[in-house]
Amino acid sequence: MRWTEGFIAADWGTTNRRAYRIDATGKCVDEFEDDHGVLSITDGNFDAAIGEIRRRLGDLPLLLAGMIGSNRGWKEAPYVPCPAGIDELAAALVWAGQREAIVPGVSYVGQGRADVMRGEEVQLLGAVAAGLVDPMGLVCHPGTHNKWATLRHGKIAEFRTVMTGELFSLLKNHSILSDALQGPVDPNDVFKQAACYAIDNEALPAELFAVRARVLLGQTKKEDGAAYVSGILIGTDVRIGLSTPAAAKITLIGRPELTRLYAAAIAEAKRDVVELDGEQCFLAGIQEIAKRIAA
Amino acid sequence: MRWTEGFIAADWGTTNRRAYRIDATGKCVDEFEDDHGVLSITDGNFDAAIGEIRRRLGDLPLLLAGMIGSNRGWKEAPYVPCPAGIDELAAALVWAGQREAIVPGVSYVGQGRADVMRGEEVQLLGAVAAGLVDPMGLVCHPGTHNKWATLRHGKIAEFRTVMTGELFSLLKNHSILSDALQGPVDPNDVFKQAACYAIDNEALPAELFAVRARVLLGQTKKEDGAAYVSGILIGTDVRIGLSTPAAAKITLIGRPELTRLYAAAIAEAKRDVVELDGEQCFLAGIQEIAKRIAA
Repeated sequence: MRWTEGFIAADWGTTNRRAYRIDATGKCVDEFEDDHGVLSITDGNFDAAIGEIRRRLGDLPLLLAGMIGSNRGWKEAPYVPCPAGIDELAAALVWAGQREAIVPGVSYVGQGRADVMRGEEVQLLGAVAAGLVDPMGLVCHPGTHNKWATLRHGKIAEFRTVMTGELFSLLKNHSILSDALQGPVDPNDVFKQAACYAIDNEALPAELFAVRARVLLGQTKKEDGAAYVSGILIGTDVRIGLSTPAAAKITLIGRPELTRLYAAAIAEAKRDVVELDGEQCFLAGIQEIAKRIAA
Repeated sequence: MRWTEGFIAADWGTTNRRAYRIDATGKCVDEFEDDHGVLSITDGNFDAAIGEIRRRLGDLPLLLAGMIGSNRGWKEAPYVPCPAGIDELAAALVWAGQREAIVPGVSYVGQGRADVMRGEEVQLLGAVAAGLVDPMGLVCHPGTHNKWATLRHGKIAEFRTVMTGELFSLLKNHSILSDALQGPVDPNDVFKQAACYAIDNEALPAELFAVRARVLLGQTKKEDGAAYVSGILIGTDVRIGLSTPAAAKITLIGRPELTRLYAAAIAEAKRDVVELDGEQCFLAGIQEIAKRIAA
């Protein structure tokens, strides 16, 4: 292995993958993103998918995170239980080849609940390593399956997944509300009012149908339907996330177009929040793990 | 018009329709059900669809209820606002032809909410007319969009729609949980425990994802996934429905395979409930409306 000469890091999800070439000094010098997510590799030919990455970024060792380590991925990397920090992830790497390591996901069992994450842990712990989040704080990672993670001493102590992004997508693409959800989603007044309402009330599956009634009865304009439903879903999500005791400092990590919506909803709950770019956090985290391989 | 010689009643929904021939004495003497719901009539040729009903059941006047009166149906029958009883429905019939009347839906605006129903009102008010429900009681009508209706003096005073059936269907057919939701849904122990949990807790979009984690971590068997998620959804629905103040007596109206699930969840909330067959209630209601046409 020649990790000290640089490596390729990849955040390989269900529908997309992003790969980065990291040089010997730790700088990202090349990258690409495509739609060759895990589910697109229907013939199980991950060797070809790996070869494609090396053709584009160089013949280097590979450190892979995300759904590539799931039971639908290349090789399953069993979940590391909470509390999980960078050291625990590095110690549980799964080697799919001589120069190909897969970062495990993280699981939580407790308080009568069970939960799993895969991919977000690198970003969360990368932000810790980079000194960007309170090591005793609360982190929210919006996405298809939003994660609320409580950090303790820089490790993920517990977390909870809220299915917000996927529910919005299901409603938009397949439900009776579809027609009312084709408009834009911005943190505008309609979004904020809906988020505020959902933070204070708890009747999600009733509020969802209400948008149809509101449009039919002329109380909400159809073009505001998407912002309204997004506000209800994200407001509900924020209510669940903020029900975690303590944790004064909240950090949002993820894609800026999502974190700004959550930031607006969290502001409605009268809490301060800092937004971090998920890609930068991923690069910080994956390099911390790579350092522990070289050691 | 010769309504006194009998008529045809139809409960014409989005995906299915049921039609009944009622004789001069008020007895149902013939009927059929098919999948010619409103959405299947893509060419707008409702005359043909009506002709088919008369060919099968006789050349009689037609009284139609359900989505046939929506903006996607034959002719729109505007919503009657709450409080709405049989008299209000009969007074607001919309005539699509000389011998074809459409029953309007019901709307509710109040308490900062807006809601609509179309089709269920005939069953609810039919149960009132038949003396089967407390005219001051609470009625739950499970379906794609479950309705909780508060009756006052035999009229629908207010109601709330919970999107339970459609959410289950979306999750089963299109979501990451799909694989875990192919099993049967029975009011078994898994269902009851999930319902009980959801009645006491309020974090639906987190509980939904949890089933994936529970299956991955071996805490729930995959074949129990559907019962678990159904229990979470229906338990949440029951929590919302029972948050209505007062209303000691609860009646369930609908298809028996759905009302038995709700009955099991309502029992977990330590409330008594009576189950009524929706078809019988529809026939009672539609005849009450027909009597007011003949008068």
